[in-house]
Amino acid sequence: MIIVLKPTASPEQIEHICDSLTALGLRPEISRGVKRTLIGVIGDEDVIRNAPLRAMPGVEDVVPILKPYKLAGRELQAEDSVIDVGFGVKVGGGSLGMIAGPCAIEGEEILFDIARSVKAAGANILRGGAFKPRSSPYTFQGLGEEGLKILRKVGDELEMPVVTEVMDPRQVELVERYTDIIQIGARNMQNFNLLSEVGRTRRPVLLKRGMSATISDLLMSAEYVMAAGNRRVILCERGIKSFDPSTRNLLDLAMVPNVKQECHLPVIVDPSHATGRPELIPAMSLASIAAGADGVHIEVHSIPEKALSDGQQALLPEQYAEVMSQMKRLAAQLGRTVPEAHGQRA
Amino acid sequence: MIIVLKPTASPEQIEHICDSLTALGLRPEISRGVKRTLIGVIGDEDVIRNAPLRAMPGVEDVVPILKPYKLAGRELQAEDSVIDVGFGVKVGGGSLGMIAGPCAIEGEEILFDIARSVKAAGANILRGGAFKPRSSPYTFQGLGEEGLKILRKVGDELEMPVVTEVMDPRQVELVERYTDIIQIGARNMQNFNLLSEVGRTRRPVLLKRGMSATISDLLMSAEYVMAAGNRRVILCERGIKSFDPSTRNLLDLAMVPNVKQECHLPVIVDPSHATGRPELIPAMSLASIAAGADGVHIEVHSIPEKALSDGQQALLPEQYAEVMSQMKRLAAQLGRTVPEAHGQRA
Amino acid sequence: MIIVLKPTASPEQIEHICDSLTALGLRPEISRGVKRTLIGVIGDEDVIRNAPLRAMPGVEDVVPILKPYKLAGRELQAEDSVIDVGFGVKVGGGSLGMIAGPCAIEGEEILFDIARSVKAAGANILRGGAFKPRSSPYTFQGLGEEGLKILRKVGDELEMPVVTEVMDPRQVELVERYTDIIQIGARNMQNFNLLSEVGRTRRPVLLKRGMSATISDLLMSAEYVMAAGNRRVILCERGIKSFDPSTRNLLDLAMVPNVKQECHLPVIVDPSHATGRPELIPAMSLASIAAGADGVHIEVHSIPEKALSDGQQALLPEQYAEVMSQMKRLAAQLGRTVPEAHGQRA
Amino acid sequence: MIIVLKPTASPEQIEHICDSLTALGLRPEISRGVKRTLIGVIGDEDVIRNAPLRAMPGVEDVVPILKPYKLAGRELQAEDSVIDVGFGVKVGGGSLGMIAGPCAIEGEEILFDIARSVKAAGANILRGGAFKPRSSPYTFQGLGEEGLKILRKVGDELEMPVVTEVMDPRQVELVERYTDIIQIGARNMQNFNLLSEVGRTRRPVLLKRGMSATISDLLMSAEYVMAAGNRRVILCERGIKSFDPSTRNLLDLAMVPNVKQECHLPVIVDPSHATGRPELIPAMSLASIAAGADGVHIEVHSIPEKALSDGQQALLPEQYAEVMSQMKRLAAQLGRTVPEAHGQRA
Repeated sequence: MIIVLKPTASPEQIEHICDSLTALGLRPEISRGVKRTLIGVIGDEDVIRNAPLRAMPGVEDVVPILKPYKLAGRELQAEDSVIDVGFGVKVGGGSLGMIAGPCAIEGEEILFDIARSVKAAGANILRGGAFKPRSSPYTFQGLGEEGLKILRKVGDELEMPVVTEVMDPRQVELVERYTDIIQIGARNMQNFNLLSEVGRTRRPVLLKRGMSATISDLLMSAEYVMAAGNRRVILCERGIKSFDPSTRNLLDLAMVPNVKQECHLPVIVDPSHATGRPELIPAMSLASIAAGADGVHIEVHSIPEKALSDGQQALLPEQYAEVMSQMKRLAAQLGRTVPEAHGQRA
Repeated sequence: MIIVLKPTASPEQIEHICDSLTALGLRPEISRGVKRTLIGVIGDEDVIRNAPLRAMPGVEDVVPILKPYKLAGRELQAEDSVIDVGFGVKVGGGSLGMIAGPCAIEGEEILFDIARSVKAAGANILRGGAFKPRSSPYTFQGLGEEGLKILRKVGDELEMPVVTEVMDPRQVELVERYTDIIQIGARNMQNFNLLSEVGRTRRPVLLKRGMSATISDLLMSAEYVMAAGNRRVILCERGIKSFDPSTRNLLDLAMVPNVKQECHLPVIVDPSHATGRPELIPAMSLASIAAGADGVHIEVHSIPEKALSDGQQALLPEQYAEVMSQMKRLAAQLGRTVPEAHGQRA
Repeated sequence: MIIVLKPTASPEQIEHICDSLTALGLRPEISRGVKRTLIGVIGDEDVIRNAPLRAMPGVEDVVPILKPYKLAGRELQAEDSVIDVGFGVKVGGGSLGMIAGPCAIEGEEILFDIARSVKAAGANILRGGAFKPRSSPYTFQGLGEEGLKILRKVGDELEMPVVTEVMDPRQVELVERYTDIIQIGARNMQNFNLLSEVGRTRRPVLLKRGMSATISDLLMSAEYVMAAGNRRVILCERGIKSFDPSTRNLLDLAMVPNVKQECHLPVIVDPSHATGRPELIPAMSLASIAAGADGVHIEVHSIPEKALSDGQQALLPEQYAEVMSQMKRLAAQLGRTVPEAHGQRA
Repeated sequence: MIIVLKPTASPEQIEHICDSLTALGLRPEISRGVKRTLIGVIGDEDVIRNAPLRAMPGVEDVVPILKPYKLAGRELQAEDSVIDVGFGVKVGGGSLGMIAGPCAIEGEEILFDIARSVKAAGANILRGGAFKPRSSPYTFQGLGEEGLKILRKVGDELEMPVVTEVMDPRQVELVERYTDIIQIGARNMQNFNLLSEVGRTRRPVLLKRGMSATISDLLMSAEYVMAAGNRRVILCERGIKSFDPSTRNLLDLAMVPNVKQECHLPVIVDPSHATGRPELIPAMSLASIAAGADGVHIEVHSIPEKALSDGQQALLPEQYAEVMSQMKRLAAQLGRTVPEAHGQRA
């Protein structure tokens, strides 16, 4: 941490700052430049971070030097995390998690239909929402526990791990019982109580990036889950807010290598929510693999125009099969594999 | 709702779309332009909104015409809502809610100190956090129920309504017991389960705008609270994300008249979180009043450099008194009043 | 400038960095922290800024300490600049420049009409575009020199200073001949050749903030004009890009006190371009005055529906008169004045 | 174009709107919905677009239906444009333009060095700036004509087409004389006079997307060049503004398939300016190819720490060679080719 002093900082102010730092067990080092005086602060970064140094008289700016996350960072764990999600599927370290399925679980028959088709195409994780975060209180909110039961049944029968979203700390236990991977949606990325709650489960967590979250914000949210005891977090890029209305959100694909510089957790890309436009999904799926993603998340529906949620952004099963086959070819060329799901729940 | 067809839409596709609309009880009206054919959709807008029309073959774009909120909108209630928060304080309709206090409740003595000073200056609502949404799991998270008790005690003794944040549906009952206004923080603006939960309480709700929420998103979140039964929502602008790092967030002050065009709920502005810089707060507080805000929310701490949260953005009590006196003068000129808090809890 | 080294930086790399700094005439100061080593760089900040220190092996980050602008900054000139624009009108130091007029100059008669009405309401600077930066090549591009002649004639006859935009370095001499203030539009804020060219004229410059410009970018563009010899720059906030489509741009009103912390130049706010919605302009005009702006820029047209450019955001003359009267009352309360334009060109 | 009327629109207002439309040679079609009346406007979209319909009393909103660009759009030309830039290199239609070189031309010897290395690696277009748009007036501004001469000499000798930026309409003739492709930088994307000027040359134009430009803005700027007579425009994505400071800009890779839906022009991606971080460039270069880009633009410098501009984001020649070899392998798998530059100027 570096404290930049105002040009007008008085000797008394500087002394007060140094005394306060010393009282916190930190060691101040003063550098006097031609125009500005700086104080380098040496000691435990967590103590430093929590001290409101910027509020001290004479301080112009405080420049942090170290990253605020630990468990998620590469300094503690250099090698990539590989996360076993059950049914023989691992995500990370060259093994790709290919998530596909409808936005919402709408019924057993339709989910079996869609699941069979995506599994045949090569998907190895089935998605489907039972609790839906809808921006209007007047739209379909999901089937709840009934949906979870359907999802579990389809997953078990087709031998695929399943992922579904939890929105409420009171539902974590229920959702954990049925799912293989617990999803935290973008709107809940900074719902810290929910993060801590899923951090106390033993299921891997798919943590979606908030629409206005920086990379650092995302890693801090992963840190919440990990600090509560659950180290198995998979990050997911699904687009951030921007000024161009031609796509639903803005896919930040550079986030993939950017996160991987700092963090050992796997990263999956969701071009469905990021673009909201089916015709852009194939190109962005390939680009995700090329950028180094550990998986791709795509919404698929067999009758999009009858979907109860987000039908307009779903691929048809045959479109998904085509993209999957291109992704597998690309992955193979780049030395990565798509494990086939089979066997049983972890 | 208007459906814009692709130039390549076939007669069969157009027929399929019209049949689907009719099956939903809607009436399609076809307009054939020189280059493009449009279908106007007449009928219940909620039915229309939930139909995934964009997923139908031949559709290029779907343009909504009506707003998705009702209870929050002016069409159902033209006149401004005035919300009684207790202790003789009303917010809206020319009566200003002036919220002040520390970021976090840190102890009884310090809260009494700060509360006395802000009340003397003219503040009529006391704020203080007992549950703090901190981006790091390693920082001070608030005093919890102990904090709530202190807040209630100070509010009662000084005869001021109090506002505090709730972050978890499981804490709503607890928080409701102690507070006069329940705050939903920016990070939880789309935590729909929490919104519904506070919608079932009988306390007014201070709903802060999310950092990437459009005006429409904010009004939809208010709609969630109102649809659950609680019509007493106060909106709060506290800055949105932008590309300029020189302020913590970007204060969208045009949001005040913009919201008021559409919506009858009161709007309060929080320049403390919006700018994160004490030296900008006085100018933006005056600007908020001039823009038509129904109140201003300012963080105040008597010893900012010892604050356990966000000390760097707090005003000192004497700075707050100075800004308050300017705001009262301005409000008076514009025909608005700052009621004095006194008496007892609603 | 502070250089943060990578945890893996070798002694050889550190030595190489220090040698390079010394060769540039700078003095390195090494601080070894628990986890990270820093090098403080002492010497001429301009030399430092131009050295690509970040490209050196072993460097993780480079943190600048001093601001890159000088002439625009308060360190060289502490007191506010007051800019005389002719016809007895000064902008800055408590004297407000109230700019009004149509988007484009469309003809002599209509400009006289509009100008008379805004002058009667209290405007003291007349605006009108002769060269229009239109995003489509197929729309009205302005009357060119004919428009400039009309503008000059109306300004002289009604005794008002005029402001008009220049888009091309080749037109600077022509525009300078006719106008009292030269406007640089938002799209040209980083057209550095144009900035240097207007920096060589002797007319005040109204520099509009670019739609994606930080405060620092804006001040650097002012610096370009000033470095070329013309110190008379008036800054103008006209909204930046954001994700909410409900207004044309996002008015960053906190920019006013923010700029004034750093910079002595006057700041004018343009709520017309910022919001693009006439019904929001009155509230934001008052808020601008309350925020400390040195003037307000409003588009006015007597027949908006026949305007050749941006008619949809213009106020009617009677609406302008109403807003102006409120702004004058507010300014008076805040101790600021709106000088009346009269007399002759500077 | 669809006009949405206010709920309060009077029959007289509706009549006035319809009369005005008819006077413009347009045909209004009224649809009366349950809650809202709409007027569909049929006729020449350009006439419609220029009419300030939104300013008419009774109008709530105006919804455009057709795109405002023509020459750049697929409706006029369905097949992809392939642009011959000389020396046997074509860009578009499966043929990739691989641009590499230093940010600024610094001298003959160093440019030869860098150019030889990138050509050996497979680059087929050499870049280098002679006129540099620097945000500070106090930094290196480029060698000007001397730089252009060096660039031409190196291009001719090594048989590579060259690209360099022009910033001023007065320099277009000079730059055209020396270069094979004329670059318009991001900051000048809406410098409409400059666009028209390069539209009158006979050299292909590399048009970089502005930092706050939507896809539609970019295509309108291409339209300016094309409307002036020069149909050979290559678009370039180089990152847009966002809120995350961890990269210099935000690379919008979905822009590639998005533009290609609408527009027949080739699209090149520049991960150097987009990310500003050399360690992210390899992943984003591969992702660009996978996303369907018609080329990749990378800054390369043999001694980044001595570069006079942007050294911190340049790759070393050996790093470039490694990325190039991966990109060629990927391109081959996807059925695209990287033509070798040889022969002479077009």
